[in-house]
Formats: sequence, C-alpha cells, structure tokens
Amino acid sequence: MGFSNIMDSNSYSPDQPLDPATESLIAARERMLGRSYRLFYERPVHLVRGVGTRLYDADGACYLDAYNNVASVGHCHPHVVESVGRQLATLNTHTRYLHNGIVDYSERLLATMPDEIGQVMYACTGSEVNDLALRVAETHTGATGVIITTDAYHGNTAAVTAISPSIGGATSMGPHVRAVPPPDSYRTATEELAGRFATDVGAAIEDLQAAGNGVSCLIVDTIFSSDGIYADPSVLAPAVELVRRAGGVFIADEVQPGFARTGAAMWGFLRHGVVPDLVTMGKPMGNGLPIAAMAARSEVLEAFANGVPYFNTFGGNPVTVAAAAAVLDVLEDEKLLVNAAEVGGQLRDDLAALAGDHPRIGDVRGAGLYIGVEIISDTGEPDRAAARAVVNAMRERRVLISVCGHDGNVLKIRPPLVFSDSDVDWFCTEFAAVLASSF
Amino acid sequence: MGFSNIMDSNSYSPDQPLDPATESLIAARERMLGRSYRLFYERPVHLVRGVGTRLYDADGACYLDAYNNVASVGHCHPHVVESVGRQLATLNTHTRYLHNGIVDYSERLLATMPDEIGQVMYACTGSEVNDLALRVAETHTGATGVIITTDAYHGNTAAVTAISPSIGGATSMGPHVRAVPPPDSYRTATEELAGRFATDVGAAIEDLQAAGNGVSCLIVDTIFSSDGIYADPSVLAPAVELVRRAGGVFIADEVQPGFARTGAAMWGFLRHGVVPDLVTMGKPMGNGLPIAAMAARSEVLEAFANGVPYFNTFGGNPVTVAAAAAVLDVLEDEKLLVNAAEVGGQLRDDLAALAGDHPRIGDVRGAGLYIGVEIISDTGEPDRAAARAVVNAMRERRVLISVCGHDGNVLKIRPPLVFSDSDVDWFCTEFAAVLASSF
Repeated sequence: MGFSNIMDSNSYSPDQPLDPATESLIAARERMLGRSYRLFYERPVHLVRGVGTRLYDADGACYLDAYNNVASVGHCHPHVVESVGRQLATLNTHTRYLHNGIVDYSERLLATMPDEIGQVMYACTGSEVNDLALRVAETHTGATGVIITTDAYHGNTAAVTAISPSIGGATSMGPHVRAVPPPDSYRTATEELAGRFATDVGAAIEDLQAAGNGVSCLIVDTIFSSDGIYADPSVLAPAVELVRRAGGVFIADEVQPGFARTGAAMWGFLRHGVVPDLVTMGKPMGNGLPIAAMAARSEVLEAFANGVPYFNTFGGNPVTVAAAAAVLDVLEDEKLLVNAAEVGGQLRDDLAALAGDHPRIGDVRGAGLYIGVEIISDTGEPDRAAARAVVNAMRERRVLISVCGHDGNVLKIRPPLVFSDSDVDWFCTEFAAVLASSF
Repeated sequence: MGFSNIMDSNSYSPDQPLDPATESLIAARERMLGRSYRLFYERPVHLVRGVGTRLYDADGACYLDAYNNVASVGHCHPHVVESVGRQLATLNTHTRYLHNGIVDYSERLLATMPDEIGQVMYACTGSEVNDLALRVAETHTGATGVIITTDAYHGNTAAVTAISPSIGGATSMGPHVRAVPPPDSYRTATEELAGRFATDVGAAIEDLQAAGNGVSCLIVDTIFSSDGIYADPSVLAPAVELVRRAGGVFIADEVQPGFARTGAAMWGFLRHGVVPDLVTMGKPMGNGLPIAAMAARSEVLEAFANGVPYFNTFGGNPVTVAAAAAVLDVLEDEKLLVNAAEVGGQLRDDLAALAGDHPRIGDVRGAGLYIGVEIISDTGEPDRAAARAVVNAMRERRVLISVCGHDGNVLKIRPPLVFSDSDVDWFCTEFAAVLASSF
C-alpha cells in the first residue's frame, strides 16, 4: 500500500520498453534517492519545459496538464518569473529585518479572509504550517485530541504524518487522533451530509474526551482531496459547532482548495459558511516557490505567540513573498476565480455528458477546477484497477491526471487555473477515446 | 527567555526614536504577524537591497553583513539569480516526474560525501530534514531516545522543537530526549574535550536505556552553533562509537557548518573524522531559496524507505535544485572553501590581537568563517548584557552580527563566504571602535 490514493508506480513494467535515456534516469534515481521516491505512471514522464497548461517531454512531445495545482496560474507564468527574478536580484533575507514585502502581502492576503481572521505566520510548506497549526491549537485549548477524515492527508512531518492515514505504508495514526468518514456525496443523500458528518464528529469528540485527550481540533481539507474530492457546500457548520462546544478549534486546510481553485470563492471554507480558527495554505501560493502560511484568529494564536518564539529561516522571505504577491496579481488580473468556475463548470458538464453513455463512470463531481470522476465496476463497486488503467491510458494520450480516494478509484482532475475552453475540448476528446477503448 | 541565544528584540526602545516609516512597518508587523515574530536589534534594520557582503537600508545606508550564512555565496549572486531565473522560466514541477536536475545535483552532492553515504532525500527546510532524520533513525533502530546538546537548535516542527531546548519560552524537551553539555573548548582543556563529551553521552545512553527508550540517535550541529560555537576538531568519534555500540545512529546536522563554512572541509563532520549515518543540510544550500536535504547511508535509510512513502511537494523541484547547483558552481569557481579558511583565519587572528588589549573578550574561536567571540565580565563570567550592547553598537556602526550560546554572551560572526580581506579590515575597525567606547 502506501499513498494508495495517489497514482504512483514503482512498477513501471510497461508493455513497450522505455528508451535508454529514461531507463538511465530511473536507475540513477533509484540508486541515489532511494525507495521513498515514487514516479507517476507505468511509463514515467520526463519533463523538460512547461508553459500555461502545457508540459513538454524530452522528445518534444506536448502534454495537457490536467493535474498540477501548484503551477496554479500556469507553468512559468511570465509575471511570476519576472517578479521573482527581480526580487532575487535585489534582496533575499529573512523576517528578523524589516521588509515591505511581507507586510504588503499580509495586508492583501488577510483582506481575502473574514474579518475575524487577522493574523498570519509564514513557513515554506503545507506540512510545516499544518504542523504549526496543530501546536497552536494544542496551546490554545490545552487538549491533544485531533479529529480528521478517514483518508486525510495533511503533510509529511512526524506530527502531521500521524494525522495523515492516506500515506499508508508503515505509518500509523497517532493515539490522540480519531478519523471520521468524509461527507461522501456519492453515497449519501445531499440533505443528510451535514448531519451525518456532525454525528460522526460528535462520536469522535466523546471518544477523545473519554480517552482523556480532550478536543484540540477538527482539521479538514475543505474539499476533501485525498478522501476522494467531496465538494458539496454547507456541510461543515454543525460539526464545527460541536467541536467548539467541546473546547476545540477548527482548522481549515486550504492547501489544495485555497487560492480560487473551487471557482466559488478564494477559500474552500467560505463555501461551507464557517469561519475557521486557523487556516493553512501552501501549494499554489507561490506557483512552485516554497511558501506556505497559517492565518489565524488572533485570540486563538495568542497563547502560542506569547509563549513560543517561532522562526522559519526562509518563511516569508522577500523572494518567496514576491512569488506569492505575483500569484495574487495574476489571480486578479486574469480573473481566474471566474475562469475556474466557468471552465470548471464546462468540464464537469462535458464529463457528465460522457458519463451518461458510460456506466463505469459512477459520479462526476467537484467545484471549479477540482473535479473527481468515480470509476466503478459493472456491479457498482469502486474499481481501482480500472481507474489506474484510465490514468495510464490518458498519459499515453498525453493528458496528465491522477487518482485519489479511499479506494484509489476517483480520477483527480485538477489543472492549472488558466485551463481554457479549448483545453476542455482537448481533455474530453482524449477522455472519450480512452473510455471507448477501455470499457 | 525564548531564543535567549538569538539576538532578538521586541523591546526596541531606542534612545533615538525610529523614523515614522520604520515605526509604521513595525506596527503593521505586530498587528498582522503576531508576537512569535521578533526583530533584530534595538533599532531594527529595514533592508531593501543586497550585493555580496553588503546590505542597504531604505535610506541608502550600507551595512557590512557579518551575520547571514544563508546568502552564503553572497547576496544576489548573479550566477544564482541567472540560474534560478532560467529554470523558473523553463519548468518547475515535482519529483513524481523524471527530471535531470535532481539526478545531476545528487551526483555532485554525494561526491562531496564519504563513500558510505550514497543516498539523499530532499525537502525545503532544515526543520523538515531534521524531522525526517529523526523518523529514519527511529525506524532503523526501533528505539526512540535522542541525545542532543544542552542548547541545541534543530528546527521548528513539533518533533524537532522537542530536541531544541535553545528555543526556550513555553517549549520543553521531550521525555525521550537527553541533553549533554557541548564540548566547551573555552572552559575545558583541549585534550579532555573528546573524553568528557563521550562520558556525558555514555551517561545519557544509560539513562535512556534505563527509561526504556533505547538509543535512536545522537544528533549534533558539528560546530555547535547555538551552544556557542565550539570548533575544536576530532571531538566526536568516541561518543559516536558509544552511540553505535548502543544500537543508535549518528546524525550530523550540517545546516550551519555545511557547504564549506568551516574552511577546513565541505562538511563539519569531516573535521571530526567520523562518517555519520545521516547528514542534514539546509540554510546556505540554495543561497536563500528553500531547499534542504538529508543524505544517508543506504542501509540506515532502507527500513524507512521501504516502509514509508515520502513526498515533499516542493522538495527537490527543478527551480530550487537549480539554485543549489548554482551554489555548488560558485563554491567551486570562486574557491570559497579556501577563502573561508584564509579570510576566516585572518579575521580570527585580528580579533585575537584585539582581544589581547581587551580583558572583556574571554575567547576568540571558530573555524573558517564561523567565529565566536566570548564576552565576559570583569570577574570572568559570561556577560549577556555586554554582548547585546556590543551587537547593538556594531549595528549602529552598520556592521551586522548577533549572539549565541547558553548565556547569550558569544558574538556570532558568520558572514557570507565571499567575505574579503577588506571586509575583515572594515569589521575590525568598527569592532575596535565599539570595544574602545564600550569598555
């Protein structure tokens, strides 16, 4: 097992042999990087260039990127390249000196949040800010219990690995952690989603209290990415209310749904009508430069901030902040929130139309440009093998996607937000061909 | 308390008032970033530009940077700027696709290590790789006990905060951690350093075994940065031998001494004649871009790598690796290892000469361009207040340094490795003036 919900493969035993250059690169990786490193696809892709939604391999072949949410404003966006290059040539120090960059950016970032959320701290990765958020919650509440979803992924440090059961392998959930099923919109009636989630969270609260942990926090990815992409809105409020009544806080992990991905709002939690206590963000924040942040209600942050000095060498440095500011510029200038809604809606409609002819597609769901397509067997069961086959067939047709979900059977379609109508046509043409030849 | 060994100040109550622009920046930081953020100096510095060993503030004043080890090949080095800019405009994805950058860099990096160390994994920060190294050690040994030095600093995640007592504040060492005094070359005879350190580590081993933790690892910064900069060579081998006999591994934290800083070797552990099991590195690796790595003996990494999938979104991505490769280029092209030895030696000699006339300087020590100057009272005790006064007086003369050590009385002099002979003269001229007016 291990990252069962991620489309990886160390078993590239393709029908066609790989070319010698690729084989040699793979051998060098295995020798020097070790077995923790995985490659996508039965035939791994050797990339050399990217622009917008396009990626190019070493042979010059062009791929449609329908997977990468880090290069969210498009691969190698010139405004990001130029902003970073200029700052890199000017100054790059750290937060123990004064610099306008971090202050100006913080103003802009916090302006996208509800008024209650007034402070922000910077790090380099989503793992780091989730690790930090757990500590802030624990300091604020005096409790240790953490509630997550069944197939949560929150990062790779020791502390967040313990709340990331989707990693699998030899990792295990911490004894202070309780997992509840995500709001599975495919197998649960819409009107029952919020109540059922709250009931499960309530049971977890009781269990944590009985165990003496108390409730530190509920932390969820607000579009339930690794759980299988569940995008129904207005699901979280009753559960969050229960957590707060038990003395805990709510952490919205916006590493994936944040920065306009869902098309409906800048942040996934806004779709749920809740104001979190802590908000974590990362991946698309700097379009590939390592920057992440934790925004907070100041009263929740206070006990930690007063008690614990925190310094992150690269966190909030001028260059990564320049990248992040450029991303905000592009989101605004190119109206990518609207684009995510419109183009994502078109893609979902087109996929739903294809699904009508294909009983092996159980569900098409999502929000904006975060779309899940559930692949099922003839008997309606999750079909991991078929989903993998679709992903590999798409790769052979040079369209990059992956899978997610408890059973690894949900196609994960999550392109750069500059995805266009013609990209939708391209995607659906290849997808229709794969469906026609696969089932 | 809290980072007592770091020259920070939230108490900027200077004799001269700050200018309004600076006051406004500080107020904005306090409002939006919160109290975990600290600023250097009684009068914080507002930087806008850097080049080589020079930093410039918003008023155009020029500072000599004798502190920043991240911009190790010099602020805004054109080769780094150009390499990063080119890669940023070309491609920036992640390690689940094949890319030459990470493979070529890994070859070069591992070539600087002893043959026993054959694998490497990438992350974004020193905190992340130390967190990872603890997990690798625990998986390999099946034990949980960690031995550190009294004022260790290994980073800011939950797991490494528990082995970083120098952070202070409300943080505390984990129950699985034992701290031993660093090899204090100022208060211990040279010939006793290795034996005394081994004796203390031996006692920690017995204590961890008695507590049922067993010994997972000894982890030290090989120049004992936060402990106060203890640079005597050939100190570690007997302690490492004891740790290995107890089933534990040795982790060399090279985040600060690594990448030629000590002038004697690429890595601090080489000065001690030991081959670590795991080596962590970060800060100067990408000259300010967030990249960090953990190198390993493959047999020590094996159990973790086979059992635990590890993915770090930005870790080892093409852009940060381009920065790291450019840093290696500059280290080689500009012969910065030799420069660190020669210029650092000159600086130590000049400081030692000044110390001869100043009884308040108890010790001048270090290796290469990592130098500690111990400030003591008339009665020979560590003098924290006097050290702070010197650092602030140097800042008023536009030379940037800081402090470290258990008592916060050791001046930390750690400039970019492109420090020149004329920078040494500049530094010593200002330092002599500060000494003359301070004592």
